[in-house]
Amino acid sequence: MATFGLIEYENASAEVRAVYDDIMTTRKTDWINNFWKAIAHDPATLKRTWEDKKQIMAPGALDPLTKELIYVAVSVSNQCDYCIASHTASARKKGMSNDMFKELMAVVGMANETNRLVAGYQVEIDERFKKSV
Amino acid sequence: MATFGLIEYENASAEVRAVYDDIMTTRKTDWINNFWKAIAHDPATLKRTWEDKKQIMAPGALDPLTKELIYVAVSVSNQCDYCIASHTASARKKGMSNDMFKELMAVVGMANETNRLVAGYQVEIDERFKKSV
Amino acid sequence: MATFGLIEYENASAEVRAVYDDIMTTRKTDWINNFWKAIAHDPATLKRTWEDKKQIMAPGALDPLTKELIYVAVSVSNQCDYCIASHTASARKKGMSNDMFKELMAVVGMANETNRLVAGYQVEIDERFKKSV
Amino acid sequence: MATFGLIEYENASAEVRAVYDDIMTTRKTDWINNFWKAIAHDPATLKRTWEDKKQIMAPGALDPLTKELIYVAVSVSNQCDYCIASHTASARKKGMSNDMFKELMAVVGMANETNRLVAGYQVEIDERFKKSV
Amino acid sequence: MATFGLIEYENASAEVRAVYDDIMTTRKTDWINNFWKAIAHDPATLKRTWEDKKQIMAPGALDPLTKELIYVAVSVSNQCDYCIASHTASARKKGMSNDMFKELMAVVGMANETNRLVAGYQVEIDERFKKSV
Amino acid sequence: MATFGLIEYENASAEVRAVYDDIMTTRKTDWINNFWKAIAHDPATLKRTWEDKKQIMAPGALDPLTKELIYVAVSVSNQCDYCIASHTASARKKGMSNDMFKELMAVVGMANETNRLVAGYQVEIDERFKKSV
Repeated sequence: MATFGLIEYENASAEVRAVYDDIMTTRKTDWINNFWKAIAHDPATLKRTWEDKKQIMAPGALDPLTKELIYVAVSVSNQCDYCIASHTASARKKGMSNDMFKELMAVVGMANETNRLVAGYQVEIDERFKKSV
Repeated sequence: MATFGLIEYENASAEVRAVYDDIMTTRKTDWINNFWKAIAHDPATLKRTWEDKKQIMAPGALDPLTKELIYVAVSVSNQCDYCIASHTASARKKGMSNDMFKELMAVVGMANETNRLVAGYQVEIDERFKKSV
Repeated sequence: MATFGLIEYENASAEVRAVYDDIMTTRKTDWINNFWKAIAHDPATLKRTWEDKKQIMAPGALDPLTKELIYVAVSVSNQCDYCIASHTASARKKGMSNDMFKELMAVVGMANETNRLVAGYQVEIDERFKKSV
Repeated sequence: MATFGLIEYENASAEVRAVYDDIMTTRKTDWINNFWKAIAHDPATLKRTWEDKKQIMAPGALDPLTKELIYVAVSVSNQCDYCIASHTASARKKGMSNDMFKELMAVVGMANETNRLVAGYQVEIDERFKKSV
Repeated sequence: MATFGLIEYENASAEVRAVYDDIMTTRKTDWINNFWKAIAHDPATLKRTWEDKKQIMAPGALDPLTKELIYVAVSVSNQCDYCIASHTASARKKGMSNDMFKELMAVVGMANETNRLVAGYQVEIDERFKKSV
Repeated sequence: MATFGLIEYENASAEVRAVYDDIMTTRKTDWINNFWKAIAHDPATLKRTWEDKKQIMAPGALDPLTKELIYVAVSVSNQCDYCIASHTASARKKGMSNDMFKELMAVVGMANETNRLVAGYQVEIDERFKKSV
């Protein structure tokens, strides 16, 4: 159970409700997932985290689906079960097909493997990879 | 320095050369980076790793650039300096712009942050995230 | 369920009981948490781990609460659910307020984020950070 | 070398200079470390990261030194060399003594050890640790 | 619940059944564990992963039990609960005694501890460790 | 450079020298590697770490070489460059052949890969893996 429990909309302060409202409007949904309800006990963190996320996950040079795939990739590497479940759901909502998910998993698995081969074989960075852009 | 040193093409066995040739042909380049030269001391691992990578990184439901972005994301989460340098270079070659890189970093940073907020606040998975597809 | 199950006080050997007794005396409690009961199957590890912990977590240049906060920070970074739950409880017992917990989480999240920005942007250590004390 | 190189004050845009100025004013220093100069290529990330950090690391229920110790603890767990070097320096500036550093390291090491004993022995969370506050 | 659910033998395609059959034959068992049934939704990954595993875990310079111990060690470091449970079971089947398990855990815990002491104290690699073989 | 620099034998206190002497005697060598010289600034940690290591790495149900292989496996998973270099050297000294090293790397890579496939596919632990011994 979440450390402080979950703050439901009806019990939330005006400050917290404002964030919940913005989450639901931005995501075009009438639902708030547990993550936000758990951190709402710290309204400053709730607001900062949401605003950062809204800015970072917005369409830009990368489209929102690609950003969700990256989010899933990191969450899988870190073995964060909640984050895997929630961002897999988000990615689907943004258009991730089953085949995309499967290829995502294959890449994440492979990267985790070769990251360790590199470390174990103590591979040095090639000169041509060292240049700044 | 790499554990066993690096095997250059001119010193490679026929078995290793065959893999090097396939890498260069597939990547349309005349150059082999240190990773392959370091693991070439184990031809079975060289061959298996290359064949897996060729299969996994090929165009599919996800395009090759998206796959490279995911590779970079994992390597950054794992703090693998070699992999960050080499896959950032690969991603550029496949079309990653500076803006794409910057957004990639922002997402990776954010995911690593919220992964820990989730853990620390002991957030439980929402019922609607638990259903299989 | 724990790999070997849990060893309760009444079923414990004299060697294990001696450690359990010392844990309860040191912590001024009549209760042993699962961690110790699970590793008690290896009395050498039980004894070594407890003695190390008693030495390391004792008041020193850092007070016991600060040490617990650090323990929680590491456990959150490593996504160890048991450790988060148990050390959050210990920290509370030693005086962690709700506000302290919230700030702790914010710092842990931020550190995990910037650790990856540093890696991804391949930031080199500033000369003035390289000097030994 | 940093992915895009470092942006020095004299070459920075007004937007970036404003952040640099705020960093130097807040920290009462005339110096900017490489981290900020490396991410300054993405002014949005520079600004967001700095503002988050200023908010999070400010004195609160936890004092600034304790927050730096936590930052070091996370950076050590994640093996981020840059972050270890820079936050160890920051912690010293805020009053960390050598003895405090040594105890910090001992706790971080121990937490990383017991996090794995817990995982390996598959220890279940005690009922009394499951309650929310 | 697994992302796509589990594919049981009776519902599997010929391609998937061929892998299941090979797993059961190789392992001299009539049972398939959940991992394979979960990734069977991606037959290419199922086949590749199984063939890699069969090659890598086969007797060689290291015996199969030692390889399982290493697998458990990595899984514990990464806090992968499923992998810890399944590979602990495999290791037992291949001859791991209780005492071997306990020593394995002690080494894994210690390595995780000293890995962080090294990072935190910023220890440089000794010249004599830098030579390639 | 190490945080506090390195303490050479000739500058060491009697307390530190006693540990250095025991390390050299136990390892049948006249040489101390940087790790010990770096943590010697904290004699309590030096002594505790050495005594734990001597106890844990001693021959038991697992032989010393197997224990070193496990140490390398963990260090590679954690991307600890110093630890990889030093424990690879130790393992060689205890009899690790090149072929053993190569197989070790293959297993470590594979385990890191499948750990993430398990997480990403959200695989649940099989009932028969849940039983305690």
